Amino acid sequence: MQVEKNKSRVVIENVKPEIDCGRFPIKRIVGGKVHVEADVFTDGHEAVSCVLLYRKEGTGDWAEVPLTPLVNDRWEAEFTVTEMGRYRYTIQAWLDHFKFWSRSLVKRVEAGQDVTVDLLIGAHLVEPAIARAGGADTERLQLFLEALRSGGNQGVQAALSTELAGLMYRYSARDASTTYSRELGIVVDRERARFSSWYEFFPRSCWGEPCGHGTFKDSEARLEYVASLGFDVIYLPPIHPIGRTNRKGKNNNVVSQPGEVGSPWAIGAEEGGHKAIHPDLGTLEDFRRFIARAREYGIEIAMDIAFQCSPDHPYVREHPEWFRMRPDGTIQYAENPPKKYEDIYPFDFETPHWREMWDELKSVVEYWIDQGVKIFRVDNPHTKSLSFWEWLIDGVKREHPETIFLAEAFTRPKVMYYLAKSGFTQSYNYFAWRNTRHELTEYFTELTRTEVKEFFYPNVWPNTPDILTEHLQVGGRPAFMSRVVLAATLAASYGIYGPAYELGENVPMAHGKEEYLNSEKYEIKQWDVNRPDSIKELIARLNRIRRENPALHSNEGLRFHPTSNEMLIAYSKATEDLGNVILTIVNLDPNYTQSGVVELPLEEFALDPHQPYQVHDLLTGGRFIWSGRHNYVEINPHALPAHVFSLRYRMRTEQDFDYYT
Amino acid sequence: MQVEKNKSRVVIENVKPEIDCGRFPIKRIVGGKVHVEADVFTDGHEAVSCVLLYRKEGTGDWAEVPLTPLVNDRWEAEFTVTEMGRYRYTIQAWLDHFKFWSRSLVKRVEAGQDVTVDLLIGAHLVEPAIARAGGADTERLQLFLEALRSGGNQGVQAALSTELAGLMYRYSARDASTTYSRELGIVVDRERARFSSWYEFFPRSCWGEPCGHGTFKDSEARLEYVASLGFDVIYLPPIHPIGRTNRKGKNNNVVSQPGEVGSPWAIGAEEGGHKAIHPDLGTLEDFRRFIARAREYGIEIAMDIAFQCSPDHPYVREHPEWFRMRPDGTIQYAENPPKKYEDIYPFDFETPHWREMWDELKSVVEYWIDQGVKIFRVDNPHTKSLSFWEWLIDGVKREHPETIFLAEAFTRPKVMYYLAKSGFTQSYNYFAWRNTRHELTEYFTELTRTEVKEFFYPNVWPNTPDILTEHLQVGGRPAFMSRVVLAATLAASYGIYGPAYELGENVPMAHGKEEYLNSEKYEIKQWDVNRPDSIKELIARLNRIRRENPALHSNEGLRFHPTSNEMLIAYSKATEDLGNVILTIVNLDPNYTQSGVVELPLEEFALDPHQPYQVHDLLTGGRFIWSGRHNYVEINPHALPAHVFSLRYRMRTEQDFDYYT
Repeated sequence: MQVEKNKSRVVIENVKPEIDCGRFPIKRIVGGKVHVEADVFTDGHEAVSCVLLYRKEGTGDWAEVPLTPLVNDRWEAEFTVTEMGRYRYTIQAWLDHFKFWSRSLVKRVEAGQDVTVDLLIGAHLVEPAIARAGGADTERLQLFLEALRSGGNQGVQAALSTELAGLMYRYSARDASTTYSRELGIVVDRERARFSSWYEFFPRSCWGEPCGHGTFKDSEARLEYVASLGFDVIYLPPIHPIGRTNRKGKNNNVVSQPGEVGSPWAIGAEEGGHKAIHPDLGTLEDFRRFIARAREYGIEIAMDIAFQCSPDHPYVREHPEWFRMRPDGTIQYAENPPKKYEDIYPFDFETPHWREMWDELKSVVEYWIDQGVKIFRVDNPHTKSLSFWEWLIDGVKREHPETIFLAEAFTRPKVMYYLAKSGFTQSYNYFAWRNTRHELTEYFTELTRTEVKEFFYPNVWPNTPDILTEHLQVGGRPAFMSRVVLAATLAASYGIYGPAYELGENVPMAHGKEEYLNSEKYEIKQWDVNRPDSIKELIARLNRIRRENPALHSNEGLRFHPTSNEMLIAYSKATEDLGNVILTIVNLDPNYTQSGVVELPLEEFALDPHQPYQVHDLLTGGRFIWSGRHNYVEINPHALPAHVFSLRYRMRTEQDFDYYT
Repeated sequence: MQVEKNKSRVVIENVKPEIDCGRFPIKRIVGGKVHVEADVFTDGHEAVSCVLLYRKEGTGDWAEVPLTPLVNDRWEAEFTVTEMGRYRYTIQAWLDHFKFWSRSLVKRVEAGQDVTVDLLIGAHLVEPAIARAGGADTERLQLFLEALRSGGNQGVQAALSTELAGLMYRYSARDASTTYSRELGIVVDRERARFSSWYEFFPRSCWGEPCGHGTFKDSEARLEYVASLGFDVIYLPPIHPIGRTNRKGKNNNVVSQPGEVGSPWAIGAEEGGHKAIHPDLGTLEDFRRFIARAREYGIEIAMDIAFQCSPDHPYVREHPEWFRMRPDGTIQYAENPPKKYEDIYPFDFETPHWREMWDELKSVVEYWIDQGVKIFRVDNPHTKSLSFWEWLIDGVKREHPETIFLAEAFTRPKVMYYLAKSGFTQSYNYFAWRNTRHELTEYFTELTRTEVKEFFYPNVWPNTPDILTEHLQVGGRPAFMSRVVLAATLAASYGIYGPAYELGENVPMAHGKEEYLNSEKYEIKQWDVNRPDSIKELIARLNRIRRENPALHSNEGLRFHPTSNEMLIAYSKATEDLGNVILTIVNLDPNYTQSGVVELPLEEFALDPHQPYQVHDLLTGGRFIWSGRHNYVEINPHALPAHVFSLRYRMRTEQDFDYYT
């Protein structure tokens, strides 16, 4: 690995963003900006010029934008991605002899030196540019060349003209340029990849209407309700036939009684597997109609992808080689020793037949895309081969760049982030277990203010069918209200598992457990969504606020603000132009009214510290006049545990009267 | 760039140390430790095992050491480099099915489950290991296999035996392992690359002895003095013939008078160029004898490498193509517009003949290595092609790994660091301009507590022939004392330009300039090294303290400690085993006595907060009894502006009396 001779004199390093030395792409939304910085320098005093190159994969030419210097050899530039799909970017830099010559000339002229010879040196630099130029530019450069050669004042004026500088930049010799050693990737998604409001429900359950087993047709009737709450994604647990062998009963009982419906995640029965629909839910036609009806409400249907099989799944019969065989001739069931899940067979990613298995699993996703599904919530992706996901998602998105994959990987942080880097669009995360001001501040700072933001779009859920946190168990209705306000305002994407959530369902299977008692995972539930204690109105207001305020459509502008009371958390989101600033203050204590002082960085909001300003509570419509950095709030969690303020910049003064002046 | 199918399930990422994605090697000293950490994980619950692989370049086999888990999927291991030269390291990881199986078995047994089938699964795992083993290990594995097959208690005992675990690790199937995508480099140098004390002097000047032009023979006589001060490297400005055309006079005058000696950096005359010796200094034989005599004192001679030519240099005649021609037919002199340096021609690194020029310049270094020089101080490397240095240093060190290159690059931070990454062993730096407690703390924290420490060995100089800082100009003798204490105790390598330094030479050419008045660069000086106000005794003591205290031989253990007075800076260096702890406290105010409280982290020093301890001032021999975290100091800068304490751990108590107990 001896170092070879290499004439290149320009160095490009420390390029940001760059994930793991370019191993993984960053993520952006159509219309989003890619701001790139790099250290670019050369030896000595010579000048460098550099450009940021970018192109959509599969298109031929690089577009370029000049980098401009910051301080300390750092340069920056940005461009906008305009289409879904994959982009690449890199940097090219070169010694800019003309720029250096022209800077030096200014100093020489200012020092009153004779520059006759220097003008001739400039002429030598212009000559080859003429050869590279064409048309009118050739003529202009020719004129400049003559002026330089003629010397004197005319020569100096020509030398320092901005037109010549522009032409020389345009026709600079790039043949000796340095190109950064890596091309870096971008995955560009549609807006909903970043900004989405999810509602999960079990289609087989019943919402007031008398029913034995809910259907897609029943679900059609629920669309109006979900739309009235303001959600734009409905996520359904698996809709496939459910296995009968070792079917789980109510409350995860290892023995089920006749007539019990089993867990939808025990996928596959004689009626079919991952490409089939549970007959009790309806037909494929019903499902397609449900998707179409939802679309009319602006709602997309997200499907669950759980790559595992019940013992009755057709794959078990047709491809026993995709499962692990035990020495006793049985197939290895899922387990987390000593726990056994005998209703589930995991795929064996160590099988010699992995290539065929991967193809088949990918075809499952493609099958549902063909039925109109564009969003997939992937169950436990961290228990399948990580390279499998990278391959699958890349392959699917090359054909269908609009596809969104949400990773349900409640696992260790490195694995969670790795899945996001490998291609998952959105990710479940630790929000459910971050409750104190310190925990929330630290976690969301990590998610939104570090490199993590380049590849990880958090989708935050205060509850799921698997997660009823102790905070919700103990905190009651105020906790359900405050946690959904936090979810909806901290993260651009969030979701709830309903109607359990809005109805405040909070009885655990046992003390110290996060499983619901009589969990919907194992039985058909009856929900009364019109119960007067439902917090659906609050949720509807939150979703309306989210839609109407662009600051809440991304996580870029999130900042936490100090409060004098640890039970009060305050944070804001702002659009880049400060045209929209949302300040949220939540009382984290579900029991008592808490009060304190919130400190705002007025200069960051471009607020005059000597002028009053208005904060408008979008939840209640209330308006408050504030002034200065420190203002007092008092929040009763039983009434409404939060303020979601819009900052109004301008207060009317005497100058607003018509007859003023 | 579509993602291909890839069965590998183990991920290795975030390896530290790793400089710029492995583009550059880290640095170590012979006998030094390389501590490596990495994130290693796989999907699901399965176990991974991983090893750190390393080898000296050019040797065949990788050595390996197992990585052990820390927390959060982070692993660590370390090894020791034992030879000068280049090493490589990387990481290999694999799914360890046996480890996972055995962990699971423990849980199953504890849960009282029937493990008959599980023992057979274990037997299946042992079978292929038998095929990979040999000799006695085969027999042992065969016995374990039978025990597993026989089942029952005997099987369980066999399964959980540490001997079986060890054998299964040794013969684990590595064929499906993942190797980290990069091999990372290490340059291993000798001890003096990191720990060295430099003394620069102009051999042509005169030290008391009557002389016209000092010689190498005169310099031989100075070795005893330099050795008595405790230095181990003598650095000489260029010793080559000096150009006559446009020779600079006294005080950098553009016109020199007959008899003026010129700047040694204007290299080359009819007597020769970079491979010749100035006739007034002596012969090559004299120089070799000087090197040999210095070696007897334990002192090495460092040469100056200044790749630039006077107009009279033979290269100008023989290789005009290595220089830039101006349109008027003259050769381009050095300049920093509007300043001109017409006594110097820079090499043109843009010449089409760069390959031959590089070879010739490298041969200069090799020529002096052949004469016995192993240390080179490179003048302004940042004004030559950066890739040139990477190529030159790599090439030279492959043949002569003991060679040390010191970069004199007082330039922008990114370029300074880039040169160190590219191969320079040691680097001049910004120490001379860091004077306040805040500046020193921040800068040395950056140098010693960040990634910079992996590739950048600072060599700190309070003065050089080019740098007489305002602090020294204004602060007088106390400033000279405090700055040399800081240099000698903050950094493992430091140097002074003498005898100017110990004699407190501090008159600048003009107010606001850092150039010396009557600079030795342009004239022969007469020094009286025995002047009573010399601080040579302090310097001799500092160098003795440095030699005797291993904590000062590296920068690893540097920590700053709070003081109650901003004029007092306190810091310590400790060996890893805390066997040697040096606490330095410096009064940064050259005018007034300053006092205050120093706060020590007793737990880091393994000191009992309830026991007194002794601090022994190695500069004065004074001893103080301290206790607790906070202790008072009072320092008069005119007497001695610093304490250099050795921490003594144990105080005698009544228990040390023979008749105690």
